[in-house]
Amino acid sequence: MTLDLTADAVTLTRQLVDIESVSRNEQAIADAIEQALRGLPHLTVTRRGHTIVARTDLGRAERVVIAGHIDTVPLNDNLPSRLEDGILHGLGSCDMKSGDAVLLRLAATLPEPNRDLTFILYEAEEIEDEFNGLRLLSESDPDLMAADFAILMEPSGAAVEAGCQGTMRVDVRTTGERAHAARSWNGVNAIHGAHEVLARLNAFEPRKPVIDGLEYREGLNAVFIHGGVAGNVLPDECVVVVNHRFAPDRSEAAAEQFLRDFFEGFEVTVTDSAPAALPGLGLPAAKEFVDAVGGPVKPKFGWTDVARFSALGVPAVNFGPGDPMLAHKQEEHVPVEHIERCERQLRDWLGGSA
Amino acid sequence: MTLDLTADAVTLTRQLVDIESVSRNEQAIADAIEQALRGLPHLTVTRRGHTIVARTDLGRAERVVIAGHIDTVPLNDNLPSRLEDGILHGLGSCDMKSGDAVLLRLAATLPEPNRDLTFILYEAEEIEDEFNGLRLLSESDPDLMAADFAILMEPSGAAVEAGCQGTMRVDVRTTGERAHAARSWNGVNAIHGAHEVLARLNAFEPRKPVIDGLEYREGLNAVFIHGGVAGNVLPDECVVVVNHRFAPDRSEAAAEQFLRDFFEGFEVTVTDSAPAALPGLGLPAAKEFVDAVGGPVKPKFGWTDVARFSALGVPAVNFGPGDPMLAHKQEEHVPVEHIERCERQLRDWLGGSA
Repeated sequence: MTLDLTADAVTLTRQLVDIESVSRNEQAIADAIEQALRGLPHLTVTRRGHTIVARTDLGRAERVVIAGHIDTVPLNDNLPSRLEDGILHGLGSCDMKSGDAVLLRLAATLPEPNRDLTFILYEAEEIEDEFNGLRLLSESDPDLMAADFAILMEPSGAAVEAGCQGTMRVDVRTTGERAHAARSWNGVNAIHGAHEVLARLNAFEPRKPVIDGLEYREGLNAVFIHGGVAGNVLPDECVVVVNHRFAPDRSEAAAEQFLRDFFEGFEVTVTDSAPAALPGLGLPAAKEFVDAVGGPVKPKFGWTDVARFSALGVPAVNFGPGDPMLAHKQEEHVPVEHIERCERQLRDWLGGSA
Repeated sequence: MTLDLTADAVTLTRQLVDIESVSRNEQAIADAIEQALRGLPHLTVTRRGHTIVARTDLGRAERVVIAGHIDTVPLNDNLPSRLEDGILHGLGSCDMKSGDAVLLRLAATLPEPNRDLTFILYEAEEIEDEFNGLRLLSESDPDLMAADFAILMEPSGAAVEAGCQGTMRVDVRTTGERAHAARSWNGVNAIHGAHEVLARLNAFEPRKPVIDGLEYREGLNAVFIHGGVAGNVLPDECVVVVNHRFAPDRSEAAAEQFLRDFFEGFEVTVTDSAPAALPGLGLPAAKEFVDAVGGPVKPKFGWTDVARFSALGVPAVNFGPGDPMLAHKQEEHVPVEHIERCERQLRDWLGGSA
């Protein structure tokens, strides 16, 4: 498969969508992207696994990273792409191959941008953290991620979504004592013991802290529950898997402490954690970008890889075509207008229309 | 594997315990039992699946069924067997391979009992009713179960336990609406919605009706709970599997109505049901056996297959070695003295010591 970087961003989005690239199956799309980028003499291309990095090296005063992941969630009878009434439908159209297409168009058509650019197209964002291409790159080649500012092209309604909330997963465990269900007075039912865990979750009122003028909104949800030994046995264990989304004014340690306090009296084990990212809108590079793009800035509720840039000291925002509410839905789609607007605004900011 | 029916009942219990036979894995133990029984010329042996029937046919005035199941609940780090200070430990030692061993010893050593005997060793008692060997036998070969009286060798502390409580399993379901966990206000969490189900279960107070002088005691327990779609998605369904034990003064219909009232406001689906059996201590055959064995008669809390005999019009009692409180517990065990006493009392009653 080949990509035609001379095509417009909408056509390019369709080309990308039609190369199926569910996480762990990115070989074909990564090969096509690498081949297309290697044909551009103004870029230096590096590949690590199925992650591609392409850089200008013009000695500009500032360097900006523009990044997008190339994998999608599993197929759900939503390929190939379909363009209808100005809306492009299909797996990955929203999350986030339209963003990738804008990125690739900029890479192909801005040989002399006013800032040095690092384009990163990376693998395995939709699955376990251990496979994430941006995470692997930050470990193997942190210098390739160095920049003054980063733009992650996650769907954000073609507006700037700043920062991101952190996410932590814990197991909340109740224990009991097995007994035959016919003589239950000899045992202690661990599932019954979980009633208080669920009651507290049900009564949870989220914090909504305002940071840099943006109102975040936390979340606390049971995402799994399991318990049970046999159909006639009192269960001696019940586990509620809880996902906490915490605002950027809290560290992972503070979030963990909150959870331990919230579930006081129960055994709590952290199984997964990723820090929030502060919006950082006061930082000069971020401020300049926001001013150039204009429009309202919104808080990012979901966790995104902007947190990885924040951790490296690089201010980063989400800015990409597509409604984030549609991500991971069967009917995901993206308005053509979003794709065109994102490309135009980035091009203007990078001096491409001068 | 082979069984040595010339060994004493305690040794035979150990042999049976050491043949792992968790429900649906009864092939090996059934083969060993069939082979051993086919070696006895005074018995006619029939096999259906992993259920073995062996009968005398001496033209006696009365026929008695002696029955036991050969499966166990799941392994819980409690094999192989261990004999210590007159106590035999191990999975199935109490429920109910010691009873099976007594049964097999009587089969091997009573070629001319004073009543005709039908020995039934059956599969899959510890799991869903549809697999139960005695149930299958009652459908395929009801004539093989015909008798004047039946003794089920379920653990009953080597005393007579009369009647049995009924058992019903229901799914109690809560529903919600999926949403990304980072924007949970767009969904409804079905696991949180189950808090009230668990709270009601936790507050349940059992009825304790007295029937034929015996005090029964009901039970209501969550035996499984499950819900969850993905680690970052609000679940749209949660199912609590509830097991209800009801006293013999209630029909299955009355028990179902109780459950529907108890869980009012939630979707309730009956998935499994078995009627209780009234103690029936006034029936002549039951009375005669109870008088011969002596000692106090107790109510049976657990559902047992005596209810199947009751349904066929055959009076039946539970009488077997082992404390029923230990059934399904990791540390289940049986006193050697129980095994020996049960064997002796049955042998006396069947004229074996005459």
